[in-house]
Amino acid sequence: MSKSEATIKRLNRIEGQVRGIVRMLEENRYCIDVLHQMQAVKAALARAESEILKDHAATCVNDAIESGDTNEQQKKVEELVDLFDKLKR
Amino acid sequence: MSKSEATIKRLNRIEGQVRGIVRMLEENRYCIDVLHQMQAVKAALARAESEILKDHAATCVNDAIESGDTNEQQKKVEELVDLFDKLKR
Amino acid sequence: MSKSEATIKRLNRIEGQVRGIVRMLEENRYCIDVLHQMQAVKAALARAESEILKDHAATCVNDAIESGDTNEQQKKVEELVDLFDKLKR
Amino acid sequence: MSKSEATIKRLNRIEGQVRGIVRMLEENRYCIDVLHQMQAVKAALARAESEILKDHAATCVNDAIESGDTNEQQKKVEELVDLFDKLKR
Repeated sequence: MSKSEATIKRLNRIEGQVRGIVRMLEENRYCIDVLHQMQAVKAALARAESEILKDHAATCVNDAIESGDTNEQQKKVEELVDLFDKLKR
Repeated sequence: MSKSEATIKRLNRIEGQVRGIVRMLEENRYCIDVLHQMQAVKAALARAESEILKDHAATCVNDAIESGDTNEQQKKVEELVDLFDKLKR
Repeated sequence: MSKSEATIKRLNRIEGQVRGIVRMLEENRYCIDVLHQMQAVKAALARAESEILKDHAATCVNDAIESGDTNEQQKKVEELVDLFDKLKR
Repeated sequence: MSKSEATIKRLNRIEGQVRGIVRMLEENRYCIDVLHQMQAVKAALARAESEILKDHAATCVNDAIESGDTNEQQKKVEELVDLFDKLKR
């Protein structure tokens, strides 16, 4: 299983967790239980995020490094800084 | 549309967004675009969270206040503090 | 040592950590080391936050519960929900 | 004023804000007001963080790109990914 397949599986699970939360709301489950379940989704998303970023570094960013293309390398760095800025911290 | 229905609709949209991210990964879309999309999901989850919490305050917590039952009120407060502690901040 | 004194000590340490980061910048220390140090400050702030909130629940919120004053109780709940909304998540 | 001086000024202000919170606790100020002030500190830290990271990209990372040293470039990317992982999200 390639890295990307593992991430796809992880996001499929997250999709299932979100569907589970919809069901909890439809069944009028206790709000606090729903909110705890949402923390679990957020933690799972953070793990998927790390995985995708590591994959990005190992592939696209690494290709830019090996190409020796300075412009391409600077673009990759700008994208990472821009993403960092948008992160909810 | 009751508050809870609005939240269910919101979470249905989030489920669709997560499915969209799976598709982006399957189509080998650019990692940075995927990561930006994940920020959008996290922001949408935070909005749903606020909505659910406000609904909880207006219903369950308010019932505990109106009941005059001190034990029940303390339980509600403990749950909120406990949730706050688990929040990814 | 009362709870509040422990929190004051904790925040005094955080103040010292921030001063340490200023020194790192003045000494032109490596950016990545500075950024890791800032994560430590953020984690320490989150712990202080939890402590203050627990103290608030055990004192002010508990007083409102024991007073039996419904208006006061609703005000306390609104404040907590409002704070939750402003949390960087 | 160089970029780094602006960041130092910003962190000096943050240090002052933390000292202000200590004073609020000593004066037994209302917990909720203290907690709102802590959100302000966290937001200010996030801005300083972005500033330092941008400075890092414009200097150290840019030097690595211009050096053409592949090993050095890979080290810079690893550091950024590692930092991202440690970010409280």
